[in-house]
Amino acid sequence: MEGADEQVSFGIDDLPVRDELRGKSPYGAPQLDVPVRLNTNENPYPLPEPLVERIAERVRDAARDLNRYPDRDAVELRTQLAKYLTDTTGHEVAPANVWAANGSNEVLQQLLQTFGGPGRTAIGFEPSYSMHGLIARGTGTGWISGPRNADFTVDLAAAEKAIAEHRPDVVFVTTPNNPTGTAVPAGTVLALYEAAQAAKPSIVVVDEAYVEFSHGDSLLPLIEGRPHLVVSRTMSKAFGAAGLRLGYLAAHPAVVDAVQLVRLPYHLSAVTQATALAALEHTGTLLKYVEQLKSERDRLAGELLAAGYEVTPSDANFVQFGRFDDAHAVWRQILDRGVLVRDNGVPGWLRVTAGTPEENDAFLDAVRELKKETSA
Amino acid sequence: MEGADEQVSFGIDDLPVRDELRGKSPYGAPQLDVPVRLNTNENPYPLPEPLVERIAERVRDAARDLNRYPDRDAVELRTQLAKYLTDTTGHEVAPANVWAANGSNEVLQQLLQTFGGPGRTAIGFEPSYSMHGLIARGTGTGWISGPRNADFTVDLAAAEKAIAEHRPDVVFVTTPNNPTGTAVPAGTVLALYEAAQAAKPSIVVVDEAYVEFSHGDSLLPLIEGRPHLVVSRTMSKAFGAAGLRLGYLAAHPAVVDAVQLVRLPYHLSAVTQATALAALEHTGTLLKYVEQLKSERDRLAGELLAAGYEVTPSDANFVQFGRFDDAHAVWRQILDRGVLVRDNGVPGWLRVTAGTPEENDAFLDAVRELKKETSA
Repeated sequence: MEGADEQVSFGIDDLPVRDELRGKSPYGAPQLDVPVRLNTNENPYPLPEPLVERIAERVRDAARDLNRYPDRDAVELRTQLAKYLTDTTGHEVAPANVWAANGSNEVLQQLLQTFGGPGRTAIGFEPSYSMHGLIARGTGTGWISGPRNADFTVDLAAAEKAIAEHRPDVVFVTTPNNPTGTAVPAGTVLALYEAAQAAKPSIVVVDEAYVEFSHGDSLLPLIEGRPHLVVSRTMSKAFGAAGLRLGYLAAHPAVVDAVQLVRLPYHLSAVTQATALAALEHTGTLLKYVEQLKSERDRLAGELLAAGYEVTPSDANFVQFGRFDDAHAVWRQILDRGVLVRDNGVPGWLRVTAGTPEENDAFLDAVRELKKETSA
Repeated sequence: MEGADEQVSFGIDDLPVRDELRGKSPYGAPQLDVPVRLNTNENPYPLPEPLVERIAERVRDAARDLNRYPDRDAVELRTQLAKYLTDTTGHEVAPANVWAANGSNEVLQQLLQTFGGPGRTAIGFEPSYSMHGLIARGTGTGWISGPRNADFTVDLAAAEKAIAEHRPDVVFVTTPNNPTGTAVPAGTVLALYEAAQAAKPSIVVVDEAYVEFSHGDSLLPLIEGRPHLVVSRTMSKAFGAAGLRLGYLAAHPAVVDAVQLVRLPYHLSAVTQATALAALEHTGTLLKYVEQLKSERDRLAGELLAAGYEVTPSDANFVQFGRFDDAHAVWRQILDRGVLVRDNGVPGWLRVTAGTPEENDAFLDAVRELKKETSA
């Protein structure tokens, strides 16, 4: 439509975009066509064929009613998510405790629109999931980068001090943490919650996107009696459904009521609801893949250590490894061997997703070879 | 999970929600179980069975890859949307001109996050689509309610004056307008665009959600040479796919680049993309339903006039009718006769969606009966 000259001459900077967006780049891992992609923490196992058929069946039914708006409150889906949470945590969760959206990113965006926003701030302990800060920016929420220890555990004393000093409106605790894999103990989360209540009181969001891969238990039972605590989850990893974009939260029913004030009406399509419901029927099978991935994650960590790398203890479906003087150069060298890992910008470290045994072998071959070359 | 007492005693107002959300209610039409529902401008025709099958087929294919993130840039979908726009407007639209999201609400939210937000303002000419103001609030954008003439056409002189006075960053022009059905002539949109450029310059969003039902042409060709003009669209109405939540925009490629800075990564699921692509394969069939609905819309308007009601000329798939001393009481009386229409809060008026001939007959019977009773 536009002439090539005009497209070159007129760009983002010529538009009246918000000042804080100027010069920024969109979030996203490079999508490269590489034999082994272990860069975005995807589950390597395709959905089992009976589930694929069940999705087609459920979506066919939904399509017959597609001229109508979807269930705005996603009652059936929230009921099944509540059942899943109850079954897997042993803590009774009701549909009124659950809310769902297009990926946990949208859940977090709704939380920040409700409890953050202009004139308010949120804190995270970094390095952590970088979307927390980006969604804060996108919702006009001030972002505070909180500290971690050198071993990537949360420095509780420093965190409490930061909370007391900045009095943030929203506190993010990611456990297991991305990109480091570090689990945060329940006691630390409770202490952060107390600090946050004493300072403001503020909403504490426990991002449990990777919790199904953890050695320990979900912190979901902590929502009991703590109406300012929110646990966020996703079907992207444990359910092998990154393409589905289904995130959800569990919290006091008042929190669920509050996010209704900012959620876009009918935000969750009928096909998304139908697909998620089909996947929830196959929870047992999908969680078996999780067990395989946990064992592969542990194998990756062990073999990396054996090959002479440092490894950050991981409770997620990935492993952070290092240390490198120039992590990006090593990222490139691994890529040259046909394996794509993630450079999250943590100085000295890279992150590899647990793939299939074959993919992990390809990765391990590449990094062992690299170690030999650098030692030679 | 929570005891009944606690649920009653602890509510939204006990949470640290943003001040401007306090006391507000979530957007949404009442969803009542009524034989004839003509309240949310849904297309009454279910998708044809061959399309339902094609959706199941496309989603089955997508489900086989659902463990992977979806195409973040939705290239195939944007290509087909560009083709649809080119075919139906005669104006050549490239994939680089098109962006898609979960409903036009999300498209508008992304535009306001990019070009509005804290410290900025947006204007709409009301009554109009009330989500414009609500999404402005949700993104921290100040909202200015601009004027209309008594016949619901845009009062150009007053609108130009409001733009010059308030210097808004975003200007919404809804054509055909919801809930009035009023089309805005191209000349008026051009004049508003010029006024907006002279004042700021600002982004002008032409919301064409209902344009396929219009007597006139789409204003999409106006984007040529006007990089601050954005046309937003939806598949909810003309494509009979309200349950799909697929909205899109056409604009200068720089606008598409700019919204990438705020879009949540992988916001559009693989199943949504697959379903939309299936629907776009059946455009010809779906647009035939649009022709039927246009003719039913015109019949509704004619019969309402013949029955002694006032009608606002409509270019959409609904008709605004009146006038009533107490529109809400009439809404209730129509509901008592088994027909749900919409009370949009426009004093003296109600809105009825064009349904199937049978549904429209049921509505017309109800309002004729009502007229007799009130005249008696």
